[in-house]
Amino acid sequence: MKDAINREQIEALLRSSAYHRFLDVQVDELSEESITISLPGNALFVTGDAEYIHGGIIATLIDIAGYFAVHRKVNLPTPTVDLQINYLRPAAPGILRAKASVVKLGRSVSLADILVTDHAGKEVAVGRGLFSSKQ
Amino acid sequence: MKDAINREQIEALLRSSAYHRFLDVQVDELSEESITISLPGNALFVTGDAEYIHGGIIATLIDIAGYFAVHRKVNLPTPTVDLQINYLRPAAPGILRAKASVVKLGRSVSLADILVTDHAGKEVAVGRGLFSSKQ
Amino acid sequence: MKDAINREQIEALLRSSAYHRFLDVQVDELSEESITISLPGNALFVTGDAEYIHGGIIATLIDIAGYFAVHRKVNLPTPTVDLQINYLRPAAPGILRAKASVVKLGRSVSLADILVTDHAGKEVAVGRGLFSSKQ
Amino acid sequence: MKDAINREQIEALLRSSAYHRFLDVQVDELSEESITISLPGNALFVTGDAEYIHGGIIATLIDIAGYFAVHRKVNLPTPTVDLQINYLRPAAPGILRAKASVVKLGRSVSLADILVTDHAGKEVAVGRGLFSSKQ
Repeated sequence: MKDAINREQIEALLRSSAYHRFLDVQVDELSEESITISLPGNALFVTGDAEYIHGGIIATLIDIAGYFAVHRKVNLPTPTVDLQINYLRPAAPGILRAKASVVKLGRSVSLADILVTDHAGKEVAVGRGLFSSKQ
Repeated sequence: MKDAINREQIEALLRSSAYHRFLDVQVDELSEESITISLPGNALFVTGDAEYIHGGIIATLIDIAGYFAVHRKVNLPTPTVDLQINYLRPAAPGILRAKASVVKLGRSVSLADILVTDHAGKEVAVGRGLFSSKQ
Repeated sequence: MKDAINREQIEALLRSSAYHRFLDVQVDELSEESITISLPGNALFVTGDAEYIHGGIIATLIDIAGYFAVHRKVNLPTPTVDLQINYLRPAAPGILRAKASVVKLGRSVSLADILVTDHAGKEVAVGRGLFSSKQ
Repeated sequence: MKDAINREQIEALLRSSAYHRFLDVQVDELSEESITISLPGNALFVTGDAEYIHGGIIATLIDIAGYFAVHRKVNLPTPTVDLQINYLRPAAPGILRAKASVVKLGRSVSLADILVTDHAGKEVAVGRGLFSSKQ
């Protein structure tokens, strides 16, 4: 199967959102099976004591990566229906990467799994998201 | 039961995080049963077409409100274990409010429910979060 | 709003499933806002030491109650898309009741909240389910 | 790492519950990384029209498999804290298998992923469960 949209189109869409540009999220890797979105370290995103990255930033990255895993397959807006996030350990400040793949592509909703790793490659969270995929 | 910490202490903690100050989250209402955290509208938080607020911002607000609903009762760090977020409708740009209450206060983990409304009072998302509450 | 289907129709549907008849689930209460399904105590449903009811039985009751909360509003099959279950405390053997209400009725999927109480009225679990509601 | 308990001990525990014996769940496969629990087809477990297996049965199998994935590692009761279940497609009547592995073994709670397949090997549901693992 050919992807519905290519890397350049994904990057353009990713950067079309003001919040995405602020976060500075990028397409890190792209394969038939998965998409990895990276989010650079930013002193704004840490907790008060600067020891780790805020969980809301991780949730946001999970949402974005899952969205694009589904979106690239259907090439239509795929608004998030629900998100399940399990935090595994505190995320050390620095770049985060979220690798997302589609578990089930459905005619009405689609499911994606997302794994977030920190700059050292440690798994910091797993996410599972349901996205609207009505065509 | 008296709350473990009072409003001034909650506000100081809330503002002790760089990310919280950036988001400009505030304690909006506080009762024995619930805490409401508000997040002002910000042009940065909208999607590309500026029609609604990014789901990651809503997830972040759910995380923060649930955290403080539990934290104020135990007065110890209560890191998020997991989050479940269901989006109900697109959130119109403007202030968001998240009202959080504790469903179950446990010796090991505690559960909180969170409801997010937009500036017009429309329900835009519900969240349920599990937070560590080891004492 | 008039319900799409009435109590007799709900009861007939509920009993049309072999598994439901085996469980002996019943419509306990019905209002415009919610439906309560009861499940009688059964020595088969307890754990080895007979101290509490198996979590799978509670998950099943959550699924059934959420299904009918949505189904009665749309009067079409509403297969479960996903379930989130949080166990609050062990369920003492005896009758269980699950009260379910619709959080959001959507054109594609609908969300229901479910609260399970044991024979003494203690809250033993909360559930949140997404059900297909395409019309 | 040697498992905390061996296959014979797992099987004895699995069969020590009245509900497990009724379901006739069995240890199907066991490796260092995962445990697979099978549940034989049973005419009681289908929906009214006998076309597919009840979602509550699938939720129950997910709970059991996740429980034992964690339990075998810690050798202490590991009650279910929460379950997330996503149904992928209707489950054809017949044997079901749930393969469970531990995502994170924690001092307070542990996370397991579970995949359920039907008799033909088709994926019918995915689950993620959090289990208490206080030692």
